[in-house]
Amino acid sequence: MSAQPLRLAVAGLGTVGIGVREGLAKHQAVLSQRAARPLKVVAVSARDRHRDRGVDLAAYDWVDNPVELAGRDDVDVVVELIGGADGPALALAKEALGRGKSFVTANKALIAHHGGELADLAETNDAALKFEAGVAGGIPVLKALREGMSANDLDSLHGILNGTCNYILTVMEREGTGFAEVLEAAQKAGYAEADPSFDVDGIDAAHKTAILAALAFGMRPDFDALSIKGIRQIAPIDIAHAADLGYRIKLLGLARRRNGAVEQRVHPCMVSKDTALAHVGGVTNAVVATGDLVGQTVYEGAGAGAGPTASAVIADVVDIAHGCRRPAFSVPADDLKALPTLDPMELDGNFYLRLRVVDRPGVIAEISSVLAGEDVSLASLIQRDTAETDGVYVVLTTHRTNEGGMTRASRKIGELDSVLEEPVMLRIERFDQ
Amino acid sequence: MSAQPLRLAVAGLGTVGIGVREGLAKHQAVLSQRAARPLKVVAVSARDRHRDRGVDLAAYDWVDNPVELAGRDDVDVVVELIGGADGPALALAKEALGRGKSFVTANKALIAHHGGELADLAETNDAALKFEAGVAGGIPVLKALREGMSANDLDSLHGILNGTCNYILTVMEREGTGFAEVLEAAQKAGYAEADPSFDVDGIDAAHKTAILAALAFGMRPDFDALSIKGIRQIAPIDIAHAADLGYRIKLLGLARRRNGAVEQRVHPCMVSKDTALAHVGGVTNAVVATGDLVGQTVYEGAGAGAGPTASAVIADVVDIAHGCRRPAFSVPADDLKALPTLDPMELDGNFYLRLRVVDRPGVIAEISSVLAGEDVSLASLIQRDTAETDGVYVVLTTHRTNEGGMTRASRKIGELDSVLEEPVMLRIERFDQ
Repeated sequence: MSAQPLRLAVAGLGTVGIGVREGLAKHQAVLSQRAARPLKVVAVSARDRHRDRGVDLAAYDWVDNPVELAGRDDVDVVVELIGGADGPALALAKEALGRGKSFVTANKALIAHHGGELADLAETNDAALKFEAGVAGGIPVLKALREGMSANDLDSLHGILNGTCNYILTVMEREGTGFAEVLEAAQKAGYAEADPSFDVDGIDAAHKTAILAALAFGMRPDFDALSIKGIRQIAPIDIAHAADLGYRIKLLGLARRRNGAVEQRVHPCMVSKDTALAHVGGVTNAVVATGDLVGQTVYEGAGAGAGPTASAVIADVVDIAHGCRRPAFSVPADDLKALPTLDPMELDGNFYLRLRVVDRPGVIAEISSVLAGEDVSLASLIQRDTAETDGVYVVLTTHRTNEGGMTRASRKIGELDSVLEEPVMLRIERFDQ
Repeated sequence: MSAQPLRLAVAGLGTVGIGVREGLAKHQAVLSQRAARPLKVVAVSARDRHRDRGVDLAAYDWVDNPVELAGRDDVDVVVELIGGADGPALALAKEALGRGKSFVTANKALIAHHGGELADLAETNDAALKFEAGVAGGIPVLKALREGMSANDLDSLHGILNGTCNYILTVMEREGTGFAEVLEAAQKAGYAEADPSFDVDGIDAAHKTAILAALAFGMRPDFDALSIKGIRQIAPIDIAHAADLGYRIKLLGLARRRNGAVEQRVHPCMVSKDTALAHVGGVTNAVVATGDLVGQTVYEGAGAGAGPTASAVIADVVDIAHGCRRPAFSVPADDLKALPTLDPMELDGNFYLRLRVVDRPGVIAEISSVLAGEDVSLASLIQRDTAETDGVYVVLTTHRTNEGGMTRASRKIGELDSVLEEPVMLRIERFDQ
């Protein structure tokens, strides 16, 4: 191997940073073959120099300020594993790309918020901007969309993009337990953070959806365009009703393009048990992408963890070693479109609504009347006694109807005296419509 | 777009050739952006110049002898869609690569038999050799293995690689009908060829398995090392028994590396209904690949057809337009290993055996005695009356046992006077072992 080594700087030495270092060390020989040159870490940076990370870092130069890594003449590629949409991660990205150094990150927040600007900078300075690890962990789905499906018009994609939520929903279904209880267990088992809101409120999945949409549709990531809802409101009764109806509840990220405008959403929804995604359980991630030539393709695997994330980060580094400089979002940054957002309220869909109401005559009539007033047509309505709580549950599903009308109806129903708690409304996703 | 166009020659204008031409025309504008230069077909070749293909080919130079395409100064990339392991396809590949022109093909037979030699030629002449469309049609699984999983040791993969067989097995299960009847219907519906042997005898899946193994393990494709069995022997009774046991029967291609040696097989086998592949029905293909960092990944989509195949062929062309010259089989051709083949007879497994026997006392004792003589331990044995035929069915499953012993036992049992037809033996695949 006579080729010059590709010299790396790694910023952030948490689980993933150490995983990247371990992966590079373990597969050093074969990576030199696959990358056609040695891959060599020359410098590292992290918050606490003296923390015991269980590995010997003496071979690497230590830099306290990560941004300094970008200024070093002996560094070709900066690997950012610090996290956060702004702060040192953003400063490091700008400094590295501005100096023509390639930049690899696992940081979905950074790319969802600043991906367009960073892509401009990368192309101006002939550097690579890569973030495969940011979406669906170890599954090479960004490569599949950008390169494997490059011959296609991609008009629709959706996926299970947050392992924590999928784990919680899977356990809730299997055990029949409530959200709070399962979340607590997940936190103890290390499947959920101490502050779980990024995951369970849908923010993490929304970052990933914005990146997937940008890649698929050739647009700048537009995080603010997303409509986002998490899974805190899901109760065992919803999961039981979903099962009765032939569905499972999944937190999905969805992106669709219609007539030149884009719909981007993250929310829990019902998916038919006949679909591939219904069978993706636990912390596994999966993405379904449909192209006009290839049809539907599905990509499934581990969405997080040190090994899968390191796998994606190192794959990006190997791409860079080969000198590939493909545009980060499929087409050159100058050609990225600013696509208008479809207003969710103007979309149609099928819906599920769960209500807790007082058990007295006339309540169903009141509810039906509100729905009729918004032109919502019922497909089914079930009343269920419950020993757990006051009142009774009323669960209904609709025929295809306007989301705006449905949302207004749900709000009005929630204001009725006979309705005891805020209604829970879920979309029933049908991917053939 | 000031960049020079990438000039293509297309050999073979059947369904796929026309699909490639249509895909290039339909997405001309966005392909120029994604490829960073225009993609332009300059010359074509096919057997019959005068056949009506429903498209206007007047814009392209017509060449009667496809090999001449490789000699043209105005051609950068040769796309081969003729088919066949040898003959004009091989001649064209050698001529193109020998002259330093990149070569893209959908021809799995060519790559399974001559991939190593062609990779040598490609690297010597700094040309690209690409064949994404050859395995699993439109699913970018070769790219996923070669690039997306480049940081991993890949020790095991398996997949549903032949849509015709998967379609036949799916219909047999759904309708309860026999192989011959379903094959005939599949031929009428266009899902099976008039001469179906390439598909139903496992050859096509074996070509693909050899290519996947070469890529995953960094070895030359070694088609002759494969042990191959097709699906002709599968009867409705086997599918019914599989269902009773919690399995489905699938034709799988499997490749595993153990202690530096390789096992490559294609055969129908039982897979648990809990696995992802059990739910892949109809003509869909799917590949499961496991890496040491990333864990298990699954890739699913259309395995054949003009659109999916064209999608993969054009994606290869876009890669070439970007100047990427990664080794065809992950590592440089000089570094490809010649890995020894594991003898299937020395492997262990769980097995299913279906026998038709005369209905008289002592037969079970005879069979059990042969199995015991080969040290095969029974897990279950069921005798079933049948109105369809003479005799009765005996179906048994084994505990983990040596395949050589099991094969000998099956042969000896088939020679017993009380056994009325050749025994059908299937592996029960457990992917965690």
